[in-house]
Amino acid sequence: MGSLSFIGLGLSDEKGMSLYGLELARAADIVLLETYTNVMPSLNIQSLEALISKEVRRVNRQFIEDGNSLLRDASERDVALLVPGDPFVATTHIELRVRAERMGIPVRVANAPSIISVAPGVVGLQNYKFGRSATITFPDNYSEVPYDTLSQNRKAGLHTLLFLDLRAEEGRYMSVPEGISLLMQMESRRHEGVISPGTLMIGIARAGSPDQLVRGGRAEELASLDFGPPPHSLIVPGRLHFMEAEALEVLAKVDRSLLSKNIDRS
Amino acid sequence: MGSLSFIGLGLSDEKGMSLYGLELARAADIVLLETYTNVMPSLNIQSLEALISKEVRRVNRQFIEDGNSLLRDASERDVALLVPGDPFVATTHIELRVRAERMGIPVRVANAPSIISVAPGVVGLQNYKFGRSATITFPDNYSEVPYDTLSQNRKAGLHTLLFLDLRAEEGRYMSVPEGISLLMQMESRRHEGVISPGTLMIGIARAGSPDQLVRGGRAEELASLDFGPPPHSLIVPGRLHFMEAEALEVLAKVDRSLLSKNIDRS
Repeated sequence: MGSLSFIGLGLSDEKGMSLYGLELARAADIVLLETYTNVMPSLNIQSLEALISKEVRRVNRQFIEDGNSLLRDASERDVALLVPGDPFVATTHIELRVRAERMGIPVRVANAPSIISVAPGVVGLQNYKFGRSATITFPDNYSEVPYDTLSQNRKAGLHTLLFLDLRAEEGRYMSVPEGISLLMQMESRRHEGVISPGTLMIGIARAGSPDQLVRGGRAEELASLDFGPPPHSLIVPGRLHFMEAEALEVLAKVDRSLLSKNIDRS
Repeated sequence: MGSLSFIGLGLSDEKGMSLYGLELARAADIVLLETYTNVMPSLNIQSLEALISKEVRRVNRQFIEDGNSLLRDASERDVALLVPGDPFVATTHIELRVRAERMGIPVRVANAPSIISVAPGVVGLQNYKFGRSATITFPDNYSEVPYDTLSQNRKAGLHTLLFLDLRAEEGRYMSVPEGISLLMQMESRRHEGVISPGTLMIGIARAGSPDQLVRGGRAEELASLDFGPPPHSLIVPGRLHFMEAEALEVLAKVDRSLLSKNIDRS
């Protein structure tokens, strides 16, 4: 009998893996790595192989989505699948797990940090004050879901985490300025006053990495900043507790005058 | 010059720490551990000390909330603070970080899995379909926020993650049945039809641990199940994609007939 281990690598490099994940990877017969669901800015495959003392085979989207060959291997041998971020944030890994469990293959999981839990913390905002999140997609896959999500969250005073689209296999990563520009285009089309050039936003680049960059300000200011290499994401704060405002001032270098307008005095 | 490292331990035991976290802890002059913001079911302090090759000093809520002694040490020596889950999900650690940054103390962060990103994945629900989350508090700190949150999310077809209150220092942890019973009492008081004994809910115990337990069903069924040791949490699903329904059937053992009512056919 084989097994399938899902091992998260976290957000930055191979050292984001947990000690339990390392144990599972070292004990596996076959170690696979997929890097298309997310980008890890400093991942070094040679260092990863040295850590695990084993060859790491990169697999692509088609291999994972099809899954047949992987599940066949896992029914006989111990297979470890290394995944950027946390293993079960991407739907495709949940599907793979469900198929494995249906086949009676033992599944083990080593969780890891995900942008979903890390992003609020790096800017100092409270997790339970976030509404639904959404992805700003590239224009060739245009969707106004992020605009609608922002609209609903802002009405309720909630913060919004916006993921920025990426196509790792093509080397395309949306930047904070591109994301803001796409939101502004939605505003021009819809004219509902959800955002304006003066809206407070926070751009995050390489969250959870030692060279993470977090910068907040008026949307029009951030739209001309260079945030450096991917991945990027965007937070649009709702009403702020004064402690949150203080955190944004220190952690995201937001100007105090901009914050005071957003503080919840109720 | 000293430094302050925030090191997440994840959800289960000391092996939830990342390799980067272990590096930071080993390099520190002083290693502190707080265990009051969350409970880690299998944490073993002797194993943790053996891993780090250093004494680990447990600190309590007052020590962290006051922070003066910790920040004084960190301004001269390298201090590592070990924290259950991810370091910046709890507001108190964000405050400490902001104070350290204001004092010019270099801050390093080793993120770790948090219940916030792990819970959706363990039941197979899609992250972006979660609305706001909330905590069901003990009756002596009664709050209907979870009821209001549930009401808003359910109207929008969204899933809701409900944290269950804990007072680690008193050894008090709310169980899934207690949480459901408190929600039912809110329903009896408010009578808005947000939930009923037949509502589909998912109870999660020890998420991210090897002995994690995930069980879904009608609220009244879960209310009589024993989920074992803490921590517990609760998910109330909104409208389900058919892939989510399939995941709940396999991962949370939910009866297919109960799922079919909740599938989004739009």
